[in-house]
Amino acid sequence: MSQLSNYALDGWVQAAGGLVSIPSALDGAIVATTGSDGLDFAAMLNHARTVGGPALRAMTFHERARLLKGLAEAIMGRKEELYVLAAHTGATRTDNWIDIEGGAGTLYAYASKGRRELPNARILIDGDTEVLSKRGGFIGQHVYTPLQGAAVHINAFNFPVWGMLEKLAPTLLAGVPAIVKPATATAYVTEAAFRIMIDTGLLPPGALQLIVGGTGDLFEHLTGQDVVSFTGSAATAAKLQNHPVIAREGVRFVAERDSLNAAILGSDATPDSPEFALFVKEVAREMTVKAGQKCTAIRRALVPATLIDTVQEALKAALSKVVVGDPAREGVTMGALVGRSQLADVRDKVGLLATEARIVHGDAGPVAGADERGAFIAPLLLRCDDPDSAVQLHEVEAFGPVATLMPYRDLAHAIDIANRGRGSLALSIVTHDPAVATELLMGVGSFHGRIHFLNRDCARESTGHGSPLPVLVHGGPGRAGGGEEMGGIRGVKHYMQRSALQGSPDMLTAITGTWLAGAKREEGEVHPFRLRFGELPVGYTKKTAARTITLEDIEHFAHFTGDTFYAHMDEEAAKASPIFGGRVAHGYLILSFAAGLFVDPSPGPVLANYGLEGLRFIKPVKPGDSIRAALTAKEKTAKTPEMGEVRWNVAVTNQEGELVASYDLLTMNAV
Amino acid sequence: MSQLSNYALDGWVQAAGGLVSIPSALDGAIVATTGSDGLDFAAMLNHARTVGGPALRAMTFHERARLLKGLAEAIMGRKEELYVLAAHTGATRTDNWIDIEGGAGTLYAYASKGRRELPNARILIDGDTEVLSKRGGFIGQHVYTPLQGAAVHINAFNFPVWGMLEKLAPTLLAGVPAIVKPATATAYVTEAAFRIMIDTGLLPPGALQLIVGGTGDLFEHLTGQDVVSFTGSAATAAKLQNHPVIAREGVRFVAERDSLNAAILGSDATPDSPEFALFVKEVAREMTVKAGQKCTAIRRALVPATLIDTVQEALKAALSKVVVGDPAREGVTMGALVGRSQLADVRDKVGLLATEARIVHGDAGPVAGADERGAFIAPLLLRCDDPDSAVQLHEVEAFGPVATLMPYRDLAHAIDIANRGRGSLALSIVTHDPAVATELLMGVGSFHGRIHFLNRDCARESTGHGSPLPVLVHGGPGRAGGGEEMGGIRGVKHYMQRSALQGSPDMLTAITGTWLAGAKREEGEVHPFRLRFGELPVGYTKKTAARTITLEDIEHFAHFTGDTFYAHMDEEAAKASPIFGGRVAHGYLILSFAAGLFVDPSPGPVLANYGLEGLRFIKPVKPGDSIRAALTAKEKTAKTPEMGEVRWNVAVTNQEGELVASYDLLTMNAV
Repeated sequence: MSQLSNYALDGWVQAAGGLVSIPSALDGAIVATTGSDGLDFAAMLNHARTVGGPALRAMTFHERARLLKGLAEAIMGRKEELYVLAAHTGATRTDNWIDIEGGAGTLYAYASKGRRELPNARILIDGDTEVLSKRGGFIGQHVYTPLQGAAVHINAFNFPVWGMLEKLAPTLLAGVPAIVKPATATAYVTEAAFRIMIDTGLLPPGALQLIVGGTGDLFEHLTGQDVVSFTGSAATAAKLQNHPVIAREGVRFVAERDSLNAAILGSDATPDSPEFALFVKEVAREMTVKAGQKCTAIRRALVPATLIDTVQEALKAALSKVVVGDPAREGVTMGALVGRSQLADVRDKVGLLATEARIVHGDAGPVAGADERGAFIAPLLLRCDDPDSAVQLHEVEAFGPVATLMPYRDLAHAIDIANRGRGSLALSIVTHDPAVATELLMGVGSFHGRIHFLNRDCARESTGHGSPLPVLVHGGPGRAGGGEEMGGIRGVKHYMQRSALQGSPDMLTAITGTWLAGAKREEGEVHPFRLRFGELPVGYTKKTAARTITLEDIEHFAHFTGDTFYAHMDEEAAKASPIFGGRVAHGYLILSFAAGLFVDPSPGPVLANYGLEGLRFIKPVKPGDSIRAALTAKEKTAKTPEMGEVRWNVAVTNQEGELVASYDLLTMNAV
Repeated sequence: MSQLSNYALDGWVQAAGGLVSIPSALDGAIVATTGSDGLDFAAMLNHARTVGGPALRAMTFHERARLLKGLAEAIMGRKEELYVLAAHTGATRTDNWIDIEGGAGTLYAYASKGRRELPNARILIDGDTEVLSKRGGFIGQHVYTPLQGAAVHINAFNFPVWGMLEKLAPTLLAGVPAIVKPATATAYVTEAAFRIMIDTGLLPPGALQLIVGGTGDLFEHLTGQDVVSFTGSAATAAKLQNHPVIAREGVRFVAERDSLNAAILGSDATPDSPEFALFVKEVAREMTVKAGQKCTAIRRALVPATLIDTVQEALKAALSKVVVGDPAREGVTMGALVGRSQLADVRDKVGLLATEARIVHGDAGPVAGADERGAFIAPLLLRCDDPDSAVQLHEVEAFGPVATLMPYRDLAHAIDIANRGRGSLALSIVTHDPAVATELLMGVGSFHGRIHFLNRDCARESTGHGSPLPVLVHGGPGRAGGGEEMGGIRGVKHYMQRSALQGSPDMLTAITGTWLAGAKREEGEVHPFRLRFGELPVGYTKKTAARTITLEDIEHFAHFTGDTFYAHMDEEAAKASPIFGGRVAHGYLILSFAAGLFVDPSPGPVLANYGLEGLRFIKPVKPGDSIRAALTAKEKTAKTPEMGEVRWNVAVTNQEGELVASYDLLTMNAV
């Protein structure tokens, strides 16, 4: 038995008193004691804001992404230490794989997204430039900058590692320091994973702190630059959200809480259809993985009324194969709840549910052959034939291996039952019929954060109903708390402030480091393709000579490429077109000639043209028109120590100075 | 004197009792009485959800955009009725122009954005497809669907028309019905503007309702599908936000409230610099427009300590030209506050501010020559030489023509003072030095919703510190409430739910109506270019024959276009490249040959190729390689009754079936 430590102001601190004991889920033996008495929470917030924040903000997104990768590697390198501790939580090795390797995987995913989708900069540009005046001398550009406060993460007990890391990855990538407060029941696993990260020495001072006990007066000191991200029960969430400081200071409050997730078997299913079997398998798995202690677990299984008896039999058959017990024992497929108090809570909730549904499989009593001091419970299937009259079934979450089967008459009825959950994290729709899927989506869409369409085509590759993924948003409306986490870079923005910048194109170009439309195009002595990545200034421009496009050019290009579209080749037909009014040059001819005008042929820092974005042909080019191009370095993103991406804006104009084509060109340049 | 009406369940209803009188700002005469006693708020919410919501959701974004345009035209057509009423609010014609024509302009802006930036569909796709399995048979796609509840808009008194319309435009465009509750002091103007919209007959039943009095038990009936959007004081906002239903049900709550907006004169300014004059002009204007009753008005003017006396003199000179009185009187440049209670409040607040600052221009007493029964007050400039010790100056908003001048020592000090406002809607930074601008932005960025960089380059075109624009976000963190409104399509998403869809590419293609990578490419008898817009199914594909690219083709193309980049022309140099390893075909040659392979030359439904997106050259094409293309209809957007945009995915592969280039092509097709 050990006493857990807090990590405050860059040092490990044990509470002097007020300790709480944490029992093992398997036999009730005390695994650790923990507490946070004596911590100065105001000083911790201040430390995060004044030490951790500035250090993280001094790094670029790419530097922070590399930090995440380093943390992930450290967790993976020492994962077996975590598996040993996590055994006390009652979870199976598979359950812990989701938690430990899933957590590290989330760090890896953000490390990768950060490198691929964010600039190697401190500011993130959001959306297109908005031209705010007729002459274009006043523009708007939205940007994200990191919040200057602290992120306070209050986590649930069920995923002590993943739950911490899925919040930390976007937070750190955003450049915001965090204070982590794990749930007591599994805090010993979180503390160990946290320690592995601190041990790397990669984290700047103040970036991370840990509270393995109550949060004392911490909320009193929150400001509008802080974010509270909570995962847990609706009751606790509401209590925290209604803390007077939250509204008064405009503190961002994100909640992910109770959710009566449903799965719907489509009306197209028949007992011998693959979808029928998939539905049964998915419901049974969701009930038993992590002993049903998952915020995304299926609690309500909605099936066509005509199939309910058949589904019930199939589910009972699947559940009867589940072996409950100490996961260390050979053959066990489902472990324990996290502790005896959780077991008591689940039994109470099952009692409530049983007033509206009957138990058709399992019972809530002791499990034969399992340690009576542990928190074991068998999977419990309930059935309610009148879901319209039920209240508790749509409101009460028994956070264990418990689900209720309900019949529906038609899709409108299914929508109504599903929506009575008043918002959830995840819904599965098991159907092979796109019409069924579409009708259900339009009815239930806005009630769910994630909707999983399962059928024979994707079942082998599906990541399953219950798995939040780092690239997809996790969270749901209404009862589920209204919060949103992860979703790739979306989750990073939750820890940043979006601001609209207004000013001259030159000023906003200077501030953002990105050439914005309307800003100066500065020419120099040297061709821009001769400048190395580091030497090339944003805004640097090559203005080309002019080239006349003749009818012969157009005909030649058409026959060479095979593109004999009438607008280029048939004067009569082109005249009749509402757009051209006569033969015009091919768009690709314009692009090709423009490249011929601006390219600098001999080997140099430009390694390759690898893409093009946002091409618009704005005005037709007619035979005899003369085009020229302006090529301007728009944005630079360092990619490797050797190479960087340059985004160039190309404006092609005609002899009247009118814009005929505009696009962004992407090249890879040597550093 | 008239009694205002509520609009509930598609009918006009006057309160039976509990009426409140609304006095004129000019002379205290009663303009109208108002109240909402007797309304059934639960029934109103239910009507919005069950009648208005389904009707709006049945429309596409483009249909809703056209609705907004119709409402804007109606407001503009009857605007003079509104100007007549608005005179009683104490505002000048210019003030009312901001309110009335600014409000209609916001509807127009959303009508235009909706047509240009949203699909002609009911679902909005968010971001890229995420491939979730190695084989690509399981993908993720985020989408937005409209919330199925009601939007409850609680508006401030200062902009009775714009305040209503800036919230309604994104709400209706999202497909969500609204219940509007104006502030009592100017409800007669809002009611008249609301009536103009109802009179158009364009709105579906249940889409809009109006409460010209208290909201009774409305909050008790809110759900997680509803949105409350509040503009007003921090105290009221906190009270509403802490209503137990908000947290319990996970109701979205958006607040835009008190804000101690600042303007900073850059340290680069000198008394004779254009920025000095611009700063003085902007502060004086922000103090006096709408008699300072603007949530974005400048309350704190931060200037280099060395310049404070000079700025003070210049500001005094500017303010002494202001003529306060009844705007109907010739020569008047500033009107009244909205009423005597507002006047009393401003005087109280000035009293608080004066404990930390001294009044250096104006006084809070009666205005000579103005009607004593009216709510007139002169502009008041305060000065505080020790802003570090001040508390009230950074917390108390006197919602009138009141601002305080403060000195700063250096930029770090300016950042500290600015951030003591704990979050604002708008900040102006008046500088011509990009280094000053950048340092200030990095220090203050996350504290402000909008940052206006004003200088000689953009001053003539600037829309000004105080003007929220429909295309930019309006709202700010912390004290400003943490909410965000408008910002173009960003504001529409506030009334929609983002959900992550998971499933097979075919299923998600069918549901979203957009061909997603990995879904079937269905070939047909007819070339896709021969199908009219309405006939072309998403997923319909043309697979072309192959064409070998010879060294002669590459040389010919190089000499024809002038693009003799070494990678195409110089075997030795190309071999030395880390990317090519030998001569390769031009990217534009691949594009041009691909077009030659798939194009169908004679006149038909495809009117023009007008753009290209997301082009990536994935693998080099070497002499002797043979390419072929697959052209797939990806997305269709009806644009006019005659034309629609088709987005085609093009995949170019080589003789090994490897992808060498991928892009989206945009064409305009006849319906």
